[in-house]
Amino acid sequence: MTAKDLKDCHKRIKSNIHRTPVMTSRLLNTMSGADLFFKCENFQRMGAFKMRGAMNAILQLSDQQKSKGVVTHSSGNFAQALSLAAQNLGITAYIVMPSNAPKVKKEAVKGYGGHIIECPPTQKDRESTAIRVQLEKGATYIHPSNQLEVILGQGTAALELLEDYPDLEYIFAPVGGGGLIAGTALAAYFYGKNCTIIGGEPFEVDDAYRALKSGKLEMNETTHTIADGLRMPLGDVNFPIIKKYVSEIIRVEEKEIIDAMQLIWERMKIIIEPSCAVPFAALLRKKERFKNKKIGIILSGGNVDLSNLPF
Amino acid sequence: MTAKDLKDCHKRIKSNIHRTPVMTSRLLNTMSGADLFFKCENFQRMGAFKMRGAMNAILQLSDQQKSKGVVTHSSGNFAQALSLAAQNLGITAYIVMPSNAPKVKKEAVKGYGGHIIECPPTQKDRESTAIRVQLEKGATYIHPSNQLEVILGQGTAALELLEDYPDLEYIFAPVGGGGLIAGTALAAYFYGKNCTIIGGEPFEVDDAYRALKSGKLEMNETTHTIADGLRMPLGDVNFPIIKKYVSEIIRVEEKEIIDAMQLIWERMKIIIEPSCAVPFAALLRKKERFKNKKIGIILSGGNVDLSNLPF
Repeated sequence: MTAKDLKDCHKRIKSNIHRTPVMTSRLLNTMSGADLFFKCENFQRMGAFKMRGAMNAILQLSDQQKSKGVVTHSSGNFAQALSLAAQNLGITAYIVMPSNAPKVKKEAVKGYGGHIIECPPTQKDRESTAIRVQLEKGATYIHPSNQLEVILGQGTAALELLEDYPDLEYIFAPVGGGGLIAGTALAAYFYGKNCTIIGGEPFEVDDAYRALKSGKLEMNETTHTIADGLRMPLGDVNFPIIKKYVSEIIRVEEKEIIDAMQLIWERMKIIIEPSCAVPFAALLRKKERFKNKKIGIILSGGNVDLSNLPF
Repeated sequence: MTAKDLKDCHKRIKSNIHRTPVMTSRLLNTMSGADLFFKCENFQRMGAFKMRGAMNAILQLSDQQKSKGVVTHSSGNFAQALSLAAQNLGITAYIVMPSNAPKVKKEAVKGYGGHIIECPPTQKDRESTAIRVQLEKGATYIHPSNQLEVILGQGTAALELLEDYPDLEYIFAPVGGGGLIAGTALAAYFYGKNCTIIGGEPFEVDDAYRALKSGKLEMNETTHTIADGLRMPLGDVNFPIIKKYVSEIIRVEEKEIIDAMQLIWERMKIIIEPSCAVPFAALLRKKERFKNKKIGIILSGGNVDLSNLPF
């Protein structure tokens, strides 16, 4: 993968995504002691950065593949992203979702034109159902985070951020399935000036933190975190990139996530989802180390259930 | 008052306020059938447009006046705005607040350096306490909405909006004490191209709607609306401006306010307070009349108590 691949990816998806704004806050700068630049992917189409990767993956399919549609299994933002990206390009998206997925998530997918295929709520059933759809419909499987096209797509958020602020010294991003942090790290490697990448991860699902220590993929025993977008473990495609280009992962407590989320809601007046607050929480946890630094923070998404808030 | 007065006001306050962004939403355009341009004063300093008027009023005081401070009575955004504006300019702000004002409001005023003076919770006590502070401290009284300097200051939001989008056919703004809608109407009269001004007002506190019918100031019997920023009646300074330059006031039900607020939270991912949702609710209520029009909407503020949301 080269710097040109990333630029080409950005050119490819540009007209189908928003160039999201970068926001600053005097007050949060004072609180953190650093100069913060928030890349607002909560304002991205369908409310999260996932739109970038989904769009890039679909746009590279052959006409033959496009005619048969795409399939993924996800009950989160990627389900919506793939649905909307597919709808925009006039192709079919099959979304495998566990039968117990929240109604609001199902409605969102339907709202973006996705075809939901329900399965029993186990990882094994999700995978086997997705394979069945590939076989029966000829649809192409797109992974939410562990696929190069998706990783590159997610990296365009940091690419835009670095175009706007080329001299950032750090970029913080959340670590879930690993697509965003891997793409961010590539963008900073190709286009940053000594820009260090730091991941934020909940203690409750710290497989990436442990994987960087052990040098091999790790699993999460449980996934009891409010950051529902970060429950997936890393994959074999993004892990080598993360190992090479991510400098460190800072873990945070659940309370720190909620506090950081509330700070951003109250002070910046924008809506972010819990997963999205994790990198800012990580920065606040270690703020003495980042005094006076110029720091980009990827605010990954803003899809929350307003009737079920943690504060 | 002339077009130049408004420009001069903007020049005067510019370096002390944010030039707030204008946001758009494909989805809300589709839902309303119009082309909407949201002027995001929820991103203004201290979270509301009130900062503009407070700053303009204070900046025009003599040095003698400044040395003795300013006073207002308010338990809402203007209390915070006057405190922050005064703090920025190194002068004292006395804020008369009813003893039963929510703790969170008192804390916010203190956070911006305001000196709270408590009084019994009646309008009469608020006024007499404010007069006492003027006499005892020599402080200058600044009215939250019924004073020319404040009205002009509030008008700079629409001035900026029209600088960015000169061919808006309508601007919608909320109607409470009347400062914002009067300033907005002046800005459109001076700098719009046939830009019609429409106010949004809750049925529950529709004194402005009735005043435009009767030709004289009206009172509100009760103030049972969730839009707490719109409970004040119009005043004798802003009413003549409103009578002359505001084309119409559209009233909305409480449920429409909450629905409009939720739509903006969910779809635009920004935090607005209930009062701020009123003009958008007014537009949605009469949307068939505004099909395909280019419409500015002033989103007035974003100060809400997150632990007490209506959804």
